[in-house]
Amino acid sequence: MSDTSKFPDPVYRDTVLAPLFEGVKTHFAGHMDAINRAHLVMLVESGILSADDGARIAGALAAIAEEVDVPALEYTGEYEDYFFLVEAELKRRLGDLGGALHTARSRNDMDHTLFKMALRERAEAMLGQLLTLAEALSAKAEAEAETLIVAYTHGQPAQPTTFGHYLCAALEVLLRDAARLSAAIDGLEHCPMGAAAITTSGFPIDRERVADLLGFEGVLVNSYGCIASVDYVTGLYSAVKLVFVHLGRVVQDMAFWSSFEVGQLYVPNSLVQISSIMPQKRNPVPIEHMRHLASVTAGRCDMVVNTMHNTPFTDMNDSEGEVQQAGYAAFESGGRVLDLLAAFLPSCSIRADRVAANMDAACVTITELADTLVRDEGLSFRQAHEIAAATARAVIAEAAPLRQGYAAFRAAFEDQTGRGPGLDEAGFRTAVAADTFVARRDRTGGPAPAALEAAQAGYRETLAELRAAARNRTTRRNEAATRLASAFNALTET
Amino acid sequence: MSDTSKFPDPVYRDTVLAPLFEGVKTHFAGHMDAINRAHLVMLVESGILSADDGARIAGALAAIAEEVDVPALEYTGEYEDYFFLVEAELKRRLGDLGGALHTARSRNDMDHTLFKMALRERAEAMLGQLLTLAEALSAKAEAEAETLIVAYTHGQPAQPTTFGHYLCAALEVLLRDAARLSAAIDGLEHCPMGAAAITTSGFPIDRERVADLLGFEGVLVNSYGCIASVDYVTGLYSAVKLVFVHLGRVVQDMAFWSSFEVGQLYVPNSLVQISSIMPQKRNPVPIEHMRHLASVTAGRCDMVVNTMHNTPFTDMNDSEGEVQQAGYAAFESGGRVLDLLAAFLPSCSIRADRVAANMDAACVTITELADTLVRDEGLSFRQAHEIAAATARAVIAEAAPLRQGYAAFRAAFEDQTGRGPGLDEAGFRTAVAADTFVARRDRTGGPAPAALEAAQAGYRETLAELRAAARNRTTRRNEAATRLASAFNALTET
Amino acid sequence: MSDTSKFPDPVYRDTVLAPLFEGVKTHFAGHMDAINRAHLVMLVESGILSADDGARIAGALAAIAEEVDVPALEYTGEYEDYFFLVEAELKRRLGDLGGALHTARSRNDMDHTLFKMALRERAEAMLGQLLTLAEALSAKAEAEAETLIVAYTHGQPAQPTTFGHYLCAALEVLLRDAARLSAAIDGLEHCPMGAAAITTSGFPIDRERVADLLGFEGVLVNSYGCIASVDYVTGLYSAVKLVFVHLGRVVQDMAFWSSFEVGQLYVPNSLVQISSIMPQKRNPVPIEHMRHLASVTAGRCDMVVNTMHNTPFTDMNDSEGEVQQAGYAAFESGGRVLDLLAAFLPSCSIRADRVAANMDAACVTITELADTLVRDEGLSFRQAHEIAAATARAVIAEAAPLRQGYAAFRAAFEDQTGRGPGLDEAGFRTAVAADTFVARRDRTGGPAPAALEAAQAGYRETLAELRAAARNRTTRRNEAATRLASAFNALTET
Amino acid sequence: MSDTSKFPDPVYRDTVLAPLFEGVKTHFAGHMDAINRAHLVMLVESGILSADDGARIAGALAAIAEEVDVPALEYTGEYEDYFFLVEAELKRRLGDLGGALHTARSRNDMDHTLFKMALRERAEAMLGQLLTLAEALSAKAEAEAETLIVAYTHGQPAQPTTFGHYLCAALEVLLRDAARLSAAIDGLEHCPMGAAAITTSGFPIDRERVADLLGFEGVLVNSYGCIASVDYVTGLYSAVKLVFVHLGRVVQDMAFWSSFEVGQLYVPNSLVQISSIMPQKRNPVPIEHMRHLASVTAGRCDMVVNTMHNTPFTDMNDSEGEVQQAGYAAFESGGRVLDLLAAFLPSCSIRADRVAANMDAACVTITELADTLVRDEGLSFRQAHEIAAATARAVIAEAAPLRQGYAAFRAAFEDQTGRGPGLDEAGFRTAVAADTFVARRDRTGGPAPAALEAAQAGYRETLAELRAAARNRTTRRNEAATRLASAFNALTET
Repeated sequence: MSDTSKFPDPVYRDTVLAPLFEGVKTHFAGHMDAINRAHLVMLVESGILSADDGARIAGALAAIAEEVDVPALEYTGEYEDYFFLVEAELKRRLGDLGGALHTARSRNDMDHTLFKMALRERAEAMLGQLLTLAEALSAKAEAEAETLIVAYTHGQPAQPTTFGHYLCAALEVLLRDAARLSAAIDGLEHCPMGAAAITTSGFPIDRERVADLLGFEGVLVNSYGCIASVDYVTGLYSAVKLVFVHLGRVVQDMAFWSSFEVGQLYVPNSLVQISSIMPQKRNPVPIEHMRHLASVTAGRCDMVVNTMHNTPFTDMNDSEGEVQQAGYAAFESGGRVLDLLAAFLPSCSIRADRVAANMDAACVTITELADTLVRDEGLSFRQAHEIAAATARAVIAEAAPLRQGYAAFRAAFEDQTGRGPGLDEAGFRTAVAADTFVARRDRTGGPAPAALEAAQAGYRETLAELRAAARNRTTRRNEAATRLASAFNALTET
Repeated sequence: MSDTSKFPDPVYRDTVLAPLFEGVKTHFAGHMDAINRAHLVMLVESGILSADDGARIAGALAAIAEEVDVPALEYTGEYEDYFFLVEAELKRRLGDLGGALHTARSRNDMDHTLFKMALRERAEAMLGQLLTLAEALSAKAEAEAETLIVAYTHGQPAQPTTFGHYLCAALEVLLRDAARLSAAIDGLEHCPMGAAAITTSGFPIDRERVADLLGFEGVLVNSYGCIASVDYVTGLYSAVKLVFVHLGRVVQDMAFWSSFEVGQLYVPNSLVQISSIMPQKRNPVPIEHMRHLASVTAGRCDMVVNTMHNTPFTDMNDSEGEVQQAGYAAFESGGRVLDLLAAFLPSCSIRADRVAANMDAACVTITELADTLVRDEGLSFRQAHEIAAATARAVIAEAAPLRQGYAAFRAAFEDQTGRGPGLDEAGFRTAVAADTFVARRDRTGGPAPAALEAAQAGYRETLAELRAAARNRTTRRNEAATRLASAFNALTET
Repeated sequence: MSDTSKFPDPVYRDTVLAPLFEGVKTHFAGHMDAINRAHLVMLVESGILSADDGARIAGALAAIAEEVDVPALEYTGEYEDYFFLVEAELKRRLGDLGGALHTARSRNDMDHTLFKMALRERAEAMLGQLLTLAEALSAKAEAEAETLIVAYTHGQPAQPTTFGHYLCAALEVLLRDAARLSAAIDGLEHCPMGAAAITTSGFPIDRERVADLLGFEGVLVNSYGCIASVDYVTGLYSAVKLVFVHLGRVVQDMAFWSSFEVGQLYVPNSLVQISSIMPQKRNPVPIEHMRHLASVTAGRCDMVVNTMHNTPFTDMNDSEGEVQQAGYAAFESGGRVLDLLAAFLPSCSIRADRVAANMDAACVTITELADTLVRDEGLSFRQAHEIAAATARAVIAEAAPLRQGYAAFRAAFEDQTGRGPGLDEAGFRTAVAADTFVARRDRTGGPAPAALEAAQAGYRETLAELRAAARNRTTRRNEAATRLASAFNALTET
Repeated sequence: MSDTSKFPDPVYRDTVLAPLFEGVKTHFAGHMDAINRAHLVMLVESGILSADDGARIAGALAAIAEEVDVPALEYTGEYEDYFFLVEAELKRRLGDLGGALHTARSRNDMDHTLFKMALRERAEAMLGQLLTLAEALSAKAEAEAETLIVAYTHGQPAQPTTFGHYLCAALEVLLRDAARLSAAIDGLEHCPMGAAAITTSGFPIDRERVADLLGFEGVLVNSYGCIASVDYVTGLYSAVKLVFVHLGRVVQDMAFWSSFEVGQLYVPNSLVQISSIMPQKRNPVPIEHMRHLASVTAGRCDMVVNTMHNTPFTDMNDSEGEVQQAGYAAFESGGRVLDLLAAFLPSCSIRADRVAANMDAACVTITELADTLVRDEGLSFRQAHEIAAATARAVIAEAAPLRQGYAAFRAAFEDQTGRGPGLDEAGFRTAVAADTFVARRDRTGGPAPAALEAAQAGYRETLAELRAAARNRTTRRNEAATRLASAFNALTET
């Protein structure tokens, strides 16, 4: 079979190679340069290359970095990809020696190293945004620790609580999401370099050194796994997805609370689209945008994870360049949600008038009346329940707030017990007041101020630990970059 | 509650409004202009606006189209979005009259009309690419109608068939996918204009006229549905997803067939990445790229569909600007798969040597021997089966091809029946030959040439119908564009 | 390599074969019997088997059907699966002849035929439930054609419309969903029988006859496609998913409308969980259950479709027994949503008091006032808009309904125009009344009674067509079953 | 509005309540009993109930447990659900006091406590299965530490390695999956009891005590979060999904390796379906079944996670009974994959003959020849590469294995260098032998025996830690159960 066709076919060039090249320019060229330098340092330090050869290659790499305007490159098809373009530049300057940089490594280990470096950048930025949001939630919760709101179950008013209490519930989830994201970032900490194509190399390489110079915590051990396993990708995108599925639920509450009829949440003018002809139609559009951006972000995460489905456990493009790049859009859209929510929530406030009106209409403290009767009047649960129910029916029939129901309460009490209540009218009003309701809920995790403050102390501690871990990562990366620069410069200084 | 904040909050501007503006410039500005023109024509024709006012507005629209360099616009936040920028331009030129263009319409009906116009462009282009691929498959199938291949079940060699027969199986699925996609495009044919915000308008508008001028088949009837229903989006992306899930399965076969050990499919040099040091390591990378691009495309479709999940049935940003734009990436990546596969498959060929070797080793015609004995020797199924099985065991034990198994066959025959077979050695060789196997399978849908040609006639007819429908759509759009231009020009000519 | 192990390994038996056997008993045994009978009829009619042999096999099949208590069977591992159990029964009764039934067919074509038969049963039942729901929506819409509701956009009150108008919007989507589902059922109409293992058979089979006896419209042509293509599965589940994504949006509206504060939708006691102590806390739980059942149904559809992702285009278990059965849960949960919604919506009513109060508070007819001024007073759009806006601001400041704003209107009118309005107070009240708003929206698709009735006529026609198509399918299946019974009985009567 | 309808509507009863009741019987009744007991103990210990009341309620609970045959219950609609049935039983026996058990708690906190208890059971069982699989992989890897295989990249033979090396790569991923699953189980360790409906209770409850008696590590702090957050569900199913996405990739390799033409993996007869007529057609069906069961499992996980999408952050059925139960199918199907793979992999073996043949044909050691020349002959990379490439071309042209290519090598060497190689024929054969290739790859993570054994030591340690953590959980649960039984019995003994 004679085959005189030449690679690349123009359709392949246009549908695959050119788009890939654009992506590499934008996302990977800088990391590839770092890998080249770290690998070169190691080759010389291990004696695989002579100091002299190392110095010449280092000089060429430095010159290329200075002279080639990467963003301006256009894909011509002359070189298969950016890697070969750099190699060709090296050979143009160094002859045969240009090829020596590729000793004891492969596109395979380089690629997954690149991808981890590009992902950790994005994932750490997102974790930073997430922690900023968490801090904003914590601060807002503190400021709103005593601001009453109606809490809903099944979409209906259920009990009084405070905005601070609600926000701390959201904060707890967010902190767990941060911990999941942080654990997923730990999954990016092991360097594949040295795996070479599949099985490491016959040269006496030092994998730990390269990992260290590139800011990794260590090496990913099994060399086959270095080029075949993708759980660093799937683990990260799974964790990111959850952040946005969970935040989307808070966003749904904000949508409901800010609806015209509920009106519990006031969104300021700066975040509302208003019609001049319908001044009361205040569309809190950031909420909608957060919802769909969160959905799109979650969808993008799924797209990446599901691309791995039913692929072989081997080095394959399914986990490489284009798929990696397609995933980055999740960080872009997700980052916008985090930034917007971190600005949105602190700007909003609770409309006390609407909260009070909804509480009155919905009789939300009635269960506390029954509990009070059990505790203070020594009634059975059934009796207390009957009295409270009768009181509720009476005030609802009159469209009156519960606090005006003393007469009805007294009548019901006498009817059940054959005696008058110990509770006088002032005591009754206190018993059914929303702030009494909240103040009495001082068990672990309740909305009463002391309970909430105790919880907040825990969140602050967790937040501080997560921030510290994030800072440690940054420090490690920066120190590694410094070590790499020194070691690389040392190559040419000899 | 005093609220002196001003819309838009800078974070909202940067995280939502600015990205939206960029998208509108790229994707929607031209369609918005067409809608403006069609709506204006209708307002004048219906007598809602006077001819004189119509002429002035038309003149201003034409001037804006000429003078404003849309791609060069940068979002400043001065206007909420592109729509308001155009409206401000109109008012700058026409004073109060500038607002009259918005009579009896709304952002709501305009938006979904825009989105349908932008989607139909992309969906029709993709359908065109898909039909081109179908034509390529049909042509290749015709050329390879007699090229033998091994057909696999459960990943193991099972029977001989022809490459043409296999390709026609893929073609059948593709034609059904094309029909599904075409039906989904029909779902874009009903124009929302005239629904206004939700309920149509109190002005005597002519919805059918606007629909016609914008190239739609007709109006989408219920006005609430016009601004709330999203099944034109979900229906389209569902259909697109299936195309790529199905093509991905053919791609998996190509991967297996072109593996080194199977070697049934020869991929030419122009589509293979080769290592100079491992000349036999021919990586057919387009296959991998088609796989992950198909996966990513399917994932992008899911992302759009799932964004609609649990949203209200009302006008909401979940189905609008940003989500629409996020979806377009599916057409970009999917289009590349279609173009690449349409170039890839015709370039490939079947390696007859490998096919023959694999057939021999796998004894794939053995069942036909049993069937022959039933038909020609009048044996019971059990007897025929026993003889064939004994023959197979014998040749496999000797690692010989089945056609050399006459002696074993004869012995088994005598053993079972107590007599010699009618079949002589030449007849035996014919009976177990792969081309006999194929030629005998001449029932509807079989690989025998006449059966395959009959099937192809059907596919060609279906293809022609799909092409004709696609052409009719294009014609209708073009004629509508001409009618719109005339009617719009007529406004200023009076 | 000596290998004395015996199939099946106990772990394989327990993890795969036993669960499969249970599924076959429940879902497929009856269809397999029909296939056996239809295939036998064809074998005899085509002369592949003699009438005598046919009669004996038919007798044995009939006896097995009578004697074997399928639901009582327990998997022992003696036979690999149910198919082999039946074959063993045949051979026990007929000796060698028992194997003759399997002439010119294979597990492969039988399986996909079975799966289509089992799916069409479920899909047609679901289509029936969906059409029942559509009829309920249409009837309810007719009954509520003049019932005013608030229509929302972006979660805020926007305009008056009628419940009937809203329901017709939902109905339009549902009818398109029904059409998509019906088209997907058409994808089950082509019979794979005769494809045998892959390539049809060397025997002179009559594929069309078997297809006809099993109630299919015709044969699926390409025999490789018969055993390899799965778009009948993916196409169906994609269509089903959309039904539930779309209905879920209506469910979200019901949740919002029935919330305590909005209160527009009244859910009767029979569908509300009430606390005796909180008589006003009426949790409309069916809404929530419809939401999660719809979500779970959509998720089950995705599960099936995505299982096909990256599988080979060949006969493979990925599309067979277990996966088929796993998918049936989608019909179970989805069917419950359809039944519940068809009972729920007609039982609900609109609370006119809450609608009126929300309309008043939200000033939802204000845009119609502006339009009226343009039409009846000849004002410019800007002037009309300014007057309406000033009127709205005034009544909202006083917390008064718009209809009481004549004085403010008059003042604003004079301020803008320097003259008094033609509109007197009665005219003003009419202009801003919600029923005027609705009555004036009589364009195609609007809520005015005539427009709505015209639309309903169209829906009824579409519904009738869909019902007729469904009935035709049922008739065809029933007639086929009768033909099969006759032809099968005829075998033994000779 | 008069509403005389009675809950439950028959459709609601049949579509929702009855299916829920069945689920509760099967999955939750036992956990509900434990919660009742633990809560009662706490109520008495905290003095909320008197010892006497406590003793009476405890007696009734014990009697109900003894007398009510839960599996035999049929749903009648008399009680809304199982909870109310138990409460009615209590009241029947205790009168008013029967209601006292429900003091300071709610369905809300009980439900999420139940769900966590039911999930941890399943998740811990799955983690156990996963660790068993990991141990099987580790043992098999040790046994196959020196068994050569061909390693593939891009679907083509690339390099020699060992089966042990490959299995350790899979093991590394599995251990990380186990760690993710274990972290997700930690997400089930915080007890919601005491949150009551939303905000804890006004009674002086002891949340920590209930958590301890039910075997939790501690309480989930924020009480709103206790009844609203669902990340314990989403986090768990996300972790489970990844297990099966990743295992599915190993399964894909097994499918390829066991294909007829590759033949590297031998699957024993006990795990292969064989046709008697085609003795060489050995379908390794467990592989296919593992693939689709893994896919279905992943799809079920997605179903649960995506059901939470766009739901409110509040107590809602979207995360409760039916959805919880629907998810359990993932543990069922996933568990089967784990058990089957743990039996499958150890039963398989590598066919050395096929590995050797494929290595020879694919010239997989050629790069090592080039590296050897650089290291031992001091050639430049380009020279070494040219010589190796020329050698490869020569042996491939002759269809000879590389080890027979000394003459070609020598010629190429002389051609490049103008001198003879230091390497003699024996040295050449050694240089290009697969076991040399492997032995030289002794860097961290390489396949050489020492490197692999060092890695294995690490895996064994990780495995031991995971097992210990699992054992600790079991111990904690068991000890808690004992404490609960004692404390509960103590109630009646006073």
